[in-house]
Amino acid sequence: MNVSSRSPERSLERLVHVPLGDRAYDILIGPGLISRAGGEITSRLKGRKAAIVTDEHVDPLYLEALMDSLQTDGIEAVSLTLPAGEKTKSLEHLATVTDMVLSARIERNDCVIALGGGVIGDLAGFAAGIVRRGVRFVQIPTTLLAQVDSSVGGKTGINTHHGKNLLGVFHQPSLVLADTAALDSLSEREFRAGYAEVAKYGLIDKPDFFVWLEKHWREVFEGGPERIEAIAVSCQAKADVVVEDERETGRRALLNLGHTFGHALEAATEYDSKRLVHGEGVAIGMVLAHQFSARLNLASPDDAGRVEAHLKAVGLPTSMSDIPGKLPPTEKLLEAIAQDKKVQGGKLTFILTHGIGQSFIANDVPSSEVLSFLEEKRPK
Amino acid sequence: MNVSSRSPERSLERLVHVPLGDRAYDILIGPGLISRAGGEITSRLKGRKAAIVTDEHVDPLYLEALMDSLQTDGIEAVSLTLPAGEKTKSLEHLATVTDMVLSARIERNDCVIALGGGVIGDLAGFAAGIVRRGVRFVQIPTTLLAQVDSSVGGKTGINTHHGKNLLGVFHQPSLVLADTAALDSLSEREFRAGYAEVAKYGLIDKPDFFVWLEKHWREVFEGGPERIEAIAVSCQAKADVVVEDERETGRRALLNLGHTFGHALEAATEYDSKRLVHGEGVAIGMVLAHQFSARLNLASPDDAGRVEAHLKAVGLPTSMSDIPGKLPPTEKLLEAIAQDKKVQGGKLTFILTHGIGQSFIANDVPSSEVLSFLEEKRPK
Ligand SMILES: NC(=O)c1ccc[n+]([C@@H]2O[C@H](COP(=O)([O-])OP(=O)(O)OC[C@H]3O[C@@H](n4cnc5c(N)ncnc54)[C@H](O)[C@@H]3O)[C@@H](O)[C@H]2O)c1
Ligand SMILES: NC(=O)c1ccc[n+]([C@@H]2O[C@H](COP(=O)([O-])OP(=O)(O)OC[C@H]3O[C@@H](n4cnc5c(N)ncnc54)[C@H](O)[C@@H]3O)[C@@H](O)[C@H]2O)c1
Ligand SMILES: [Zn+2]
Ligand SMILES: [Zn+2]
Repeated sequence: MNVSSRSPERSLERLVHVPLGDRAYDILIGPGLISRAGGEITSRLKGRKAAIVTDEHVDPLYLEALMDSLQTDGIEAVSLTLPAGEKTKSLEHLATVTDMVLSARIERNDCVIALGGGVIGDLAGFAAGIVRRGVRFVQIPTTLLAQVDSSVGGKTGINTHHGKNLLGVFHQPSLVLADTAALDSLSEREFRAGYAEVAKYGLIDKPDFFVWLEKHWREVFEGGPERIEAIAVSCQAKADVVVEDERETGRRALLNLGHTFGHALEAATEYDSKRLVHGEGVAIGMVLAHQFSARLNLASPDDAGRVEAHLKAVGLPTSMSDIPGKLPPTEKLLEAIAQDKKVQGGKLTFILTHGIGQSFIANDVPSSEVLSFLEEKRPK
Repeated sequence: MNVSSRSPERSLERLVHVPLGDRAYDILIGPGLISRAGGEITSRLKGRKAAIVTDEHVDPLYLEALMDSLQTDGIEAVSLTLPAGEKTKSLEHLATVTDMVLSARIERNDCVIALGGGVIGDLAGFAAGIVRRGVRFVQIPTTLLAQVDSSVGGKTGINTHHGKNLLGVFHQPSLVLADTAALDSLSEREFRAGYAEVAKYGLIDKPDFFVWLEKHWREVFEGGPERIEAIAVSCQAKADVVVEDERETGRRALLNLGHTFGHALEAATEYDSKRLVHGEGVAIGMVLAHQFSARLNLASPDDAGRVEAHLKAVGLPTSMSDIPGKLPPTEKLLEAIAQDKKVQGGKLTFILTHGIGQSFIANDVPSSEVLSFLEEKRPK
């Protein structure tokens, strides 16, 4: 790379490499990457055809810039714009995407590009993973959640009436372009939801990063170098875990901190984004995981308090009573937890913690303990 | 294994191991394996739940024996019986299978079992590859083609209106049980079609095996030790190629000997099994590949003659004029070849040969040569 030709903007750019052997790839993080996508792709991939999948909110904001950049660099591209929202992660839309990709005659070395949040990334990645048993896949995540979490690591999937993400494949992207300036158009609420996942990396095993976030979260929200830094640290954290355990047979489960409670709450609110979005569920879930760990005498209640205070400060919900509307009976919540796919042979697996940045995988958590804990914590 | 406790039947059993690291698995070949499936599965896999997929022809013949054996060994099993035939490899049936597997609450270590031919294996394997991003998969192939080819190697898939096998994943089975006695109920025509793939392994790189087949093919058709031997040699041959090149980025393409012409003929006859089944297309395709190689002065015409004579002796079609009904114009055939997915960047890739057992991958075959060759060979 010719440093002298870089714009001042580009000098802030960060690169995280994910060393997965013949599936290794780069994550670029910085402002303006959408308008430079063509060059970044042609310098790494052989194919000169692309099929872009995006949603109706992202299309008017960034599709043209992406198409222009691809055209400039000689990539022949077509695009498909889908409805926004979790419901798009369906078998029906998967069929629409694969059909479009096949019509575009995308071959193994050509690519499918996901331009959007985690919904588009999960759906388009699944399609890329099954067309011709796998074609190249480029992630251009445009939500904070997608930039720090869903675009890295190769998990793809759709929902069925049996539950979330029950169908999918592991299919690593060949490149991730996290355009940090694209987050400026994101609603405050969506940004905050993604921030829950950023904080998660600190809580899993990076206590210093959590301290840094407590100090710098305002700058992360405002944009600028701290935002890039927080996203780069998060991507690096996720990449480290993925490289150690690509197919989640062990350590990768740590990334589910806050998610067992979180998913149960998402199910309890029927995935109604007016009531709760994923990151908000994770925020409440992380507070609950710390409180539950304290209750089991594994961690100090002070740590739970600190987590709660920080997430509250950024404007995230931190307790079940912050969720608008009525929650189902506690037994139903427990059922949702037991149905979560992190259940192995009927036993409850939780990510618990010994304190901030000291999370661990606990198998065999007695469901009676969970039940009485939830009973105590739920709004009366 | 306790040799002394084996029945006389079992002493004929062969085992081919496929050493694919953490995806390694065994292929057992011999008579009576369906009624012993439970024990073979429980001794290798942790899960105690299974979802069986079969078709309407195979169900009345072997499903009960399989269910009984699973029950005896403490595996809780459910089954789904689908229509027989290539049309079952559709997105619609994939949805039916995944729904059934999810309803059965199959977890990562439980298994999906394919009991049937290549159609059921490809479909059920695809479902196993995407439910929870991959659950265990056991192949119990009941056609000769499935025993020597489709059940080994992890390719799964379905068809779309764009073409055959265009959606799928690589998902290796955890165990393959090739019950050679199950082939007794197979129609002569289906057995022959599968035999084309057996002969293929000789023609790729095992000239001695081809000579052995010329001598012993009658015993292979009749059953007995030669059938087991031929299937074991074929599985070993396929396993060797798969281990070298699991995802078909190179050498695995040799397995397509006869398939480029064959697929074009299948397309030309609109996949109408009354006119042509896959193995028959492959038989004609292999003869054409040898004749085309001779015409390009790569091999002796005598070799083409020997291949033709052997396949004719077993009762397989060996020329386009053996196909009932009218074929489309030669240009259409060429188009079908060019659309075949083994085309890279627009150039024609063929498996050609220097003689019996000396096949090689030829990129860059000029389409004009193919056109004039086909023009000469087609029925006038
Ligand atoms: N694959 C993984 O490893 C993984 C990890 C975590 C979450 N996920 C999945 O990710 C999904 C959630 O992702 P998400 O939170 O990004 O949701 P999303 O994709 O629905 O995006 C949220 C909203 O923001 C809009 N949007 C996207 N980018 C925008 C921008 N730059 N400006 C303005 N609006 C924009 C979208 O149209 C949508 O309305 C869930 O389906 C979850 O299961 C996957
Ligand atoms: N995955 C791979 O690597 C691979 C390789 C080669 C072929 N294939 C696929 O395999 C399919 C063809 O497989 P096939 O030839 O086994 O076809 P098939 O599954 O349709 O079986 C042929 C017929 O035989 C019947 N049958 C099966 N077992 C029987 C038995 N023991 N007794 C009586 N009838 C029986 C079936 O019901 C069917 O009617 C194609 O879809 C092809 O694409 C896949
Ligand atoms: Zn999450
Ligand atoms: Zn074949």
